[in-house]
Formats: sequence, structure tokens, C-alpha cells
Amino acid sequence: MLKPLGDRVVIELVESEEKTASGIVLPDSAKEKPQEGKVVAVGSGRVTENGERVALEVSEGNTIIFSKYAGTEVKYEGKEYLILRESDILAIVG
Amino acid sequence: MLKPLGDRVVIELVESEEKTASGIVLPDSAKEKPQEGKVVAVGSGRVTENGERVALEVSEGNTIIFSKYAGTEVKYEGKEYLILRESDILAIVG
Amino acid sequence: MLKPLGDRVVIELVESEEKTASGIVLPDSAKEKPQEGKVVAVGSGRVTENGERVALEVSEGNTIIFSKYAGTEVKYEGKEYLILRESDILAIVG
Amino acid sequence: MLKPLGDRVVIELVESEEKTASGIVLPDSAKEKPQEGKVVAVGSGRVTENGERVALEVSEGNTIIFSKYAGTEVKYEGKEYLILRESDILAIVG
Amino acid sequence: MLKPLGDRVVIELVESEEKTASGIVLPDSAKEKPQEGKVVAVGSGRVTENGERVALEVSEGNTIIFSKYAGTEVKYEGKEYLILRESDILAIVG
Amino acid sequence: MLKPLGDRVVIELVESEEKTASGIVLPDSAKEKPQEGKVVAVGSGRVTENGERVALEVSEGNTIIFSKYAGTEVKYEGKEYLILRESDILAIVG
Amino acid sequence: MLKPLGDRVVIELVESEEKTASGIVLPDSAKEKPQEGKVVAVGSGRVTENGERVALEVSEGNTIIFSKYAGTEVKYEGKEYLILRESDILAIVG
Repeated sequence: MLKPLGDRVVIELVESEEKTASGIVLPDSAKEKPQEGKVVAVGSGRVTENGERVALEVSEGNTIIFSKYAGTEVKYEGKEYLILRESDILAIVG
Repeated sequence: MLKPLGDRVVIELVESEEKTASGIVLPDSAKEKPQEGKVVAVGSGRVTENGERVALEVSEGNTIIFSKYAGTEVKYEGKEYLILRESDILAIVG
Repeated sequence: MLKPLGDRVVIELVESEEKTASGIVLPDSAKEKPQEGKVVAVGSGRVTENGERVALEVSEGNTIIFSKYAGTEVKYEGKEYLILRESDILAIVG
Repeated sequence: MLKPLGDRVVIELVESEEKTASGIVLPDSAKEKPQEGKVVAVGSGRVTENGERVALEVSEGNTIIFSKYAGTEVKYEGKEYLILRESDILAIVG
Repeated sequence: MLKPLGDRVVIELVESEEKTASGIVLPDSAKEKPQEGKVVAVGSGRVTENGERVALEVSEGNTIIFSKYAGTEVKYEGKEYLILRESDILAIVG
Repeated sequence: MLKPLGDRVVIELVESEEKTASGIVLPDSAKEKPQEGKVVAVGSGRVTENGERVALEVSEGNTIIFSKYAGTEVKYEGKEYLILRESDILAIVG
Repeated sequence: MLKPLGDRVVIELVESEEKTASGIVLPDSAKEKPQEGKVVAVGSGRVTENGERVALEVSEGNTIIFSKYAGTEVKYEGKEYLILRESDILAIVG
């Protein structure tokens, strides 16, 4: 298990199979980098200058869209994840 | 549905058909980039250092003008949206 | 109507007709960019980190001087306005 | 009248007539830029993140010294003034 | 003993022996820089602008993953450690 | 009299006569810039975001050491002073 | 005596005699810059935006390790010291 710190979340990338107009499935390198993910773990939130911890707006299981190139890729037990700060998440899809 | 996070809003671009002085409708590439949008969803607001969440000033249905080049374009269910921070919104038109 | 957000104000530029020493009225391009405006709408103020909204010092109808090049020009119902943050306003003239 | 906003002050420049060692009065361009001024109007002060307005330390009539090149020159009713932030004022003389 | 200050932690690097596809153990310089560590000491936390000290989320014995290139290497009693700020720690592994 | 504003102090430079190893007194340009001064006036302190004014740690008469190149030189009644922010003062000597 | 201001500390450098593998004592210029020091005086702490003074974590007599190149060298009564901010101190050794 990965427990993110502060206002971070761990996500799994969601990649939709993509076909070109002519129906050909594109190999990985020809597709745009994904912007969609599924939240698998959330941190306990940042602490304000007032000393209060602010709970995250997203929760486990949410599908989200996030800024391209945000976050850090990590490999854990053979699987790839992305660790993002909540501020890099644009919206919850649902 | 797209639920924006924090002080973000989701907008649809409003593009007015435009004619030149001589009455010719300009094709898309000849027009300036739109600065007007309609709010379709609002976030729950940013949290101050005092731990309080500040509700947004705009609400669903508002027509707004915003800084050119602000925000991130997202495609959702075949439609294009723009996700902005409220601070990039200049005024409500109404 | 344009309702500015936060600590923004909408102003109309005030341009005084200008004559040179010899009494010739200068065409537009020969004059300096205006620094004076009339406030036509004010926002509800910024929110401090303490969660309080701070009312603006200027109000509708005030004539103000502001930093050159500040703000964003917008066209609304065929008229040109400038949207400024209150921090770009130097003083109220009156 | 000019009423400065926030922590700004309006000052008139104080230029002392200056003689060289040999007693010759120097023309303007040969003197250093002035650093001394007289306060003619003060703003109502900045608002802290706690929502409190902080009154200025200087008041009308004070002679002050300020950082060279600070502030914005404005012309009002044919006279030249300088609008400074209080943080650009180094000390009160007197 | 090393007692880190503020929101810092002292970690020992965790390096897993690595084999290439063909089973050859790679010498040190051919492996990627480690991103995993074990916490050996934690600071007492940063002090917020409200004057409160915020305890760290990690504790002694935790295995963590952290941003590559973060922190400062120190040698103490012949052993190498890394001193990081908690904000450079991405997640606790466990 | 010069009354510094905020967290500023007015100091007089302290220059010790300096001899080289062979006992020759060096002319001014061959000495390093002084880092030592005597406080002649102190401001009433900065105001925190909480609205409180923080009294300075130094007081009139203190001998201090400060960061080289910090501050602004001013001439007042024929004498040279330096106006520093308290944050440029490293320590009180005494 | 040197009394450091705010969150500063005065330290004496601790330099260990160093031998190469072959037992030769290295002259000064061949050694790395020291990172270890002994605290000889501590300031009374920084003041938060809430108006509270935060006491330092280190105290007189502590041996510390600090970021290379941090601080300002000062000479006082013929001895060399380094004045650091507490935030440049990584850990207390003890």
C-alpha cells in the first residue's frame, strides 16, 4: 500500500483504447499522454497557517482529470502510479 | 458531469457569429480568440489560511468574461470546455 | 452591465482634449496614453486569509488615476472599458 | 485634491538650492535627483490578512526621505507630485 | 545520533539488489538513483504563522518514497544518511 | 533628527583605524567596507498580518554588525548615516 | 559577546584533523569545507504573523551540521565565527 502525504493523492492512469478514423488501434507512443486517472489513495490534507488540516475534496475511487505533466511517476509492486498534489487536479468526472 | 475542484469553474465558450463591415461572415481562424463564456459548474471554493472555505462569486448559468489564454481546455463526452480559476474571471456580464 | 469580481473595478477612460502651446488640437496618436478614468462598477472586494471580505475604497462615479498599462481592455455593447484591480489605482481625484 | 489609496502617500518634492564649493548655483540637470519630499496627503492604510487596516506612520506636513526612483509622478492642476507607498519611505526628518 | 530540525527527517537509503533481464547484477553506477528510504529520525515539525508546531506524518521506522535529488547527504559515524524536508516525501510504503 | 519607519534603524558607521602588519595606517580606499555600526535611531517596528506591531530587538546606542552592502546611505545635516532594515542586522556586539 | 538577532545563531566551526587512506594529514586547502559547528549564541527567535516569538530548537553548546555555504563569516576579537539562520541548520549531533 502507498499512503500519500499531505495534500497528495495516488492515482492509476486511465487509458482508453483509441482508434484512428480508419479504425486502426494506435500503439502507445502515437497517443497523447493521458489526462484521466482513478484515485487509489488520498493524503490526510495540508495544514493551514492556522494549524488546521484541510481534508481533500477527492476520495478513493473518484475518476479525475488533471494537468498534463503534473506529478511524479512511481512503480510499486510492478504497477505504475502517479502521485499528484490535489491542486493539480482540475475536476472530478462523475 | 464535471465537478471542478477548489476555486475552479467549468465554462462553455460563447462565440458570436461575426460579420465584417461588408457583411461577410468570417471563418473561425480569422476571428480573435473568444473571451466570453457561460459557467456550467463551479467548485466549492478555496480554503484560506484560517481554514475557511470561500464560496465563489460566480454561479452556474452566469455569462462571464475572462483573461485570454487562461485555463485548460478539456474534452468531455465529445464537447469542449475550459476549466478556469475564479481569479482569471474579470467580470460577470448580465 | 458588467459586474467585476473580487477587488476589480470597471472604468471608462477620461481623455481631455489637448492643445499644444500654439493652440493646435493634437490627433490621438500624438497624445500620451490616458491615466485617468471614471469608475462605473466595483467588485465586492478581496477575501483575506482570515476569511473576511474587504470592501473597496473607491466607489461608482469616482474619478481616479491609475498606473499606465495596468488592467485589461474589454468591449461591451460597443463601448470600451478597462478592468483594473484596486491595487493599480493610485488615487481618487476630487 | 488627490486622495491616495491604501498605504500610499502623495508628496511634493523638496529641492534645495545648491551651490558648488565656489558658490555657483548649479542648473537643474547637474544636481542629483531629489530624495526629500513633503507629505501632502496620506491613504487610509493597507489591510492585513487579519482584516485590520493599519494607519500610516507619516502624516500630512511631514518632511520625509525616500528611496530614489520610487513612486509614480503625476501632474495635477499644473503641479507635479509623486505617489509613493509608505514602504518606500525611509525616515521622517524633523 | 542525529536529531533533525523542524520538518526534516533523517533517512537511510534502501537499495535493492538489481539484476538485468539476463540475470547479471549491475554495479552501482549503472543503476538508477534510489527513491526509497527508511526513516531513522524525525524533527519536531514546522511552526505555522499561528505559532503552532505541526507534528510530522512520518515516524521512525517508516519506509518512504521521495523525490529524486531532494535532500542533503551527510556522513555520520562512517554511515551515509540523507536529510530531507517532509514536503519532499511523496508517500509512506507499508 | 531622523525617525526611521517600520522595522528600520539609522546607524552611524564605526570605522576602526587600521594598521598593516608593518604599522602603516592605510588610507580609506585600501580598507574593506565597514560592517560595524552604532544605532542612533530605531523605528516603531513592522506590523504583522495579525495587526500587531513588533518592537525592534536593537535599541539606540547598540553597536551592531550588519550584512555588507545592505541599506541606503543618507546625508543629514552634513553627516553620513545608513538606514537599514532590522533583518539586515546580524548581531549586537556588547 | 555577539548576540544574534531573530532566528540567527553564532557558531564556531569544528574542523576535524583528517588523514588520507595512506595516513598523510592533508593541508587545509585540500579538505572539503566544514559542515559542522558548535553553537556559541542563539537569537531570541523569529516572530510569526500572529505576533508570537518562536524560541529556537538549538541551544548554546549544541554541535550541529549545516548547509555548506550558508551564513556570513564574521571576525570578533580575533576569532572567526559564522552567523547562520536556524533554517540553515540540518540537525543536532549528539
